[in-house]
Amino acid sequence: MSEPEVSSYEKLMRELRDASVLSSAGAVLGWDQETMLPPKGTALRADQLAAIGGLVHERFTRPEVGEWLSECEADRALTSDPRTAANLREIRRGYDRAVKLPGSLVREIAQTTALSQQAWRQAREKSDFAAFAPWLSKMFSLSRAKAECYATDVGGSLYDALLDTYEPRASAAELDAVFSELRRKLTPLIAEIAAAGERPRPPVQRAPVPVERQRAFNRRVLGQMGFDFDAGRLDLSAHPFCEGIGPGDTRLTTRFREDDFLDALTSSMHEGGHGLYEQGLPKAEYPGQPLGEAASLGIHESQSRLWENFVGRSHAFWEWALPEARRGLGEALEGVSVEDVYRASNTVRPNLIRVDSDEATYNLHIMLRFDLERALLSGELKPEDLPGVWNERVRQDLGIDVPDDRRGCLQDIHWSMGLVGYFPTYTLGNLFAAQFWKAARAATPDLDDRMRRGDFSALLAWLRENIHRYGQEYTPMELCERATGSRLSAGPFIEYLEGKLRSVYGL
Amino acid sequence: MSEPEVSSYEKLMRELRDASVLSSAGAVLGWDQETMLPPKGTALRADQLAAIGGLVHERFTRPEVGEWLSECEADRALTSDPRTAANLREIRRGYDRAVKLPGSLVREIAQTTALSQQAWRQAREKSDFAAFAPWLSKMFSLSRAKAECYATDVGGSLYDALLDTYEPRASAAELDAVFSELRRKLTPLIAEIAAAGERPRPPVQRAPVPVERQRAFNRRVLGQMGFDFDAGRLDLSAHPFCEGIGPGDTRLTTRFREDDFLDALTSSMHEGGHGLYEQGLPKAEYPGQPLGEAASLGIHESQSRLWENFVGRSHAFWEWALPEARRGLGEALEGVSVEDVYRASNTVRPNLIRVDSDEATYNLHIMLRFDLERALLSGELKPEDLPGVWNERVRQDLGIDVPDDRRGCLQDIHWSMGLVGYFPTYTLGNLFAAQFWKAARAATPDLDDRMRRGDFSALLAWLRENIHRYGQEYTPMELCERATGSRLSAGPFIEYLEGKLRSVYGL
Repeated sequence: MSEPEVSSYEKLMRELRDASVLSSAGAVLGWDQETMLPPKGTALRADQLAAIGGLVHERFTRPEVGEWLSECEADRALTSDPRTAANLREIRRGYDRAVKLPGSLVREIAQTTALSQQAWRQAREKSDFAAFAPWLSKMFSLSRAKAECYATDVGGSLYDALLDTYEPRASAAELDAVFSELRRKLTPLIAEIAAAGERPRPPVQRAPVPVERQRAFNRRVLGQMGFDFDAGRLDLSAHPFCEGIGPGDTRLTTRFREDDFLDALTSSMHEGGHGLYEQGLPKAEYPGQPLGEAASLGIHESQSRLWENFVGRSHAFWEWALPEARRGLGEALEGVSVEDVYRASNTVRPNLIRVDSDEATYNLHIMLRFDLERALLSGELKPEDLPGVWNERVRQDLGIDVPDDRRGCLQDIHWSMGLVGYFPTYTLGNLFAAQFWKAARAATPDLDDRMRRGDFSALLAWLRENIHRYGQEYTPMELCERATGSRLSAGPFIEYLEGKLRSVYGL
Repeated sequence: MSEPEVSSYEKLMRELRDASVLSSAGAVLGWDQETMLPPKGTALRADQLAAIGGLVHERFTRPEVGEWLSECEADRALTSDPRTAANLREIRRGYDRAVKLPGSLVREIAQTTALSQQAWRQAREKSDFAAFAPWLSKMFSLSRAKAECYATDVGGSLYDALLDTYEPRASAAELDAVFSELRRKLTPLIAEIAAAGERPRPPVQRAPVPVERQRAFNRRVLGQMGFDFDAGRLDLSAHPFCEGIGPGDTRLTTRFREDDFLDALTSSMHEGGHGLYEQGLPKAEYPGQPLGEAASLGIHESQSRLWENFVGRSHAFWEWALPEARRGLGEALEGVSVEDVYRASNTVRPNLIRVDSDEATYNLHIMLRFDLERALLSGELKPEDLPGVWNERVRQDLGIDVPDDRRGCLQDIHWSMGLVGYFPTYTLGNLFAAQFWKAARAATPDLDDRMRRGDFSALLAWLRENIHRYGQEYTPMELCERATGSRLSAGPFIEYLEGKLRSVYGL
């Protein structure tokens, strides 16, 4: 008896499923490394992750995989189905990117990144840019070499080739246009707020709140948002993150400060937004396939920012959440009003540090990095000139002086890891979020009333229906247009910020 | 330029190292499954573990591996070195066992085990032996099939072939002789204790102690024992276990009952004993090699029992530990004396349940299982006759009536998983532990004084020096003889029990 014939598509799907099972094992190890791993276990963990990463790469780049893919692409019966065609389109993108990098370059990048990150940590600690400059230079050279391998895909632009890693099919020119519009409208708003004078941030907490009580309250809010704790966890880590391990297993982390419950809550809601996206993707139906995976980093970030900012800094949310917080956190919140927390959550003040910045000025940080990383990649900006240019730009954009490089151009880990083209996805997330928020509100006129009752189900249903279930069926820009009826623009985000901040600041 | 020649031994060592890195990734996933995994993540976890298990098996059973091994075995330069020869001897044992099982049998065992375990859980819950009997029969048939594949290695005895999986190179005949001696001396001692009349167990705890305080106290004791928390963790799980993931990463679990701090402490010390062995094995020097791995389950169990029982139920230990416990656990221990805890820790009373039994009667449970599993494997005992035979034997050996199969022959998970030949390693652990304890005390005359001060370093140093550092260099029986000067016997264990229990019970 001959075996029943297995189609190339079926073989390809099995391959993706098997690879994703292995990758997901690596994801568990990655999560464990940040939350559980004892210090002396780090060397073994690096070996484990390298072994699994190597196996996944090796499997997926086998020539048969390319042959099956080509056979599928030539099969009209497959390509005439739009979902299957989308699946093949993104598998091709991933396969080409995986086979285009020579092994020697992959190894050089891995080795240099490890050293460069270490050099960055030490340089940042001592605020010693000179010690990091040669590594910055090396990492940009390697990024350039990598971009050259990819660049044929994306019409030859080196930066676009890297951006495409994180935001498929976006281009710097397109982002530049939208970011310019954003900058044009944001700058005067921030100036007006600054001119309105410093508003004292009302105290929102009168006593320390123990971690265990905060943890229970954070779980309560995440549960109310719709996060399924039977298919996920909330733990502690130094830097909060979300790991979507696979179907049924999505893990969030946060961190707690006893004197500031808002710090943990905003982190939890941010990671919770990522987590809801991971739980909403059709991973079980399309195991390891693009149709079951996140559309892009920008879309992912839109989900986290939507819950952290658009929901979590809204008046309606606090009308529900403050009584809950009082119940959960006790006397520490006695005498605090919704207005107090709402204002505290919406304070705008330029900050040297990106990750400590408010919703408005945050984007100036991103645009600065977007501009400078393009100049560093093209060679227009020499690595050694970075601090001067950085500090001048911070003065112009944020009106503050950078006292040292630790709080200046050494603050972020990204470039030390070769993550070039990553930063813009943060602001993209804000812009997508504003468009989704506007569309979801239009579709659900009583959204504020629902939030006042702690009912987030209609919002989540809109996101599931319009974003989550598509995976990578559409490109991020297409997805945005389909979900909102409009192409990406800065308009909705500016409208949202203006509407909220003018009222908070009485402008 | 030609590549420098890599010897077969070097290739073999690389292979073992690579396989152990992958296995250790599987160990992390296994630990996570018992401690962290959200319920909906179980299906993916099964796939991840199967994928990694498959890869490890596939790699290790490649014909090249067998060829390298044969080349090494033919190389006098290698085999004349005793450590290398031992390494090769145990690699051969593992390789032969790995290649001897046909893939079809491996798959059948895996599938049947999953179903059988499920059937056992349901049958135990309802105390319905009839529902489990067909599965018991299937699992023993499969064990027989497996044993037949191995049996040529061990002179043809089917039971020995299975025992060898857990206790390399032990034989049922050898164990039978030692166990008979043990039974002969244990039975009258237990009878004398029973005749002395029920002694009221003094209360050792007067109020509930919150889990967090207990956890800190357990960590304190483990730290004092020498467990390195920079290379390990202590977490919670339903069934306590120790997972030696690899160099620098050994994880213990325990469970807490607020009304009984001794329950968690004895579990923690037991798992801590396993953990000290894992941390003491030369895993980093011999990555993935037998020289870096535990000698056997019996030797492993000797380490856990030594710390749990010989140390943790001793008067000297409690002279140190009770003041510590009072400091850590608070008023709950007020008015409790060392004598109270010591007596409570050394109560002998036959119990229907193996895992709830005391140090003495526990071994009668094991001998019962050892005898019955041999009879089940040979076919002398029919699965359907098990309950009657079991209950009769419990009446004879322990003097108690079995009220239902849930508390009788359905109490243990082992046979439902096909673990035949595993039970005797528990009593072997007690016997080895007694021999090691006697030798360590002879070598360290002030051991009790040290324990009274909470100084366990000399004991740990003796174990490191005489047991841990050897890995599998010697067979378990050889290791015992080298470390203690005597072959395995029941004498030291009986002496130890007699010495302690006669004084506790005033016999």
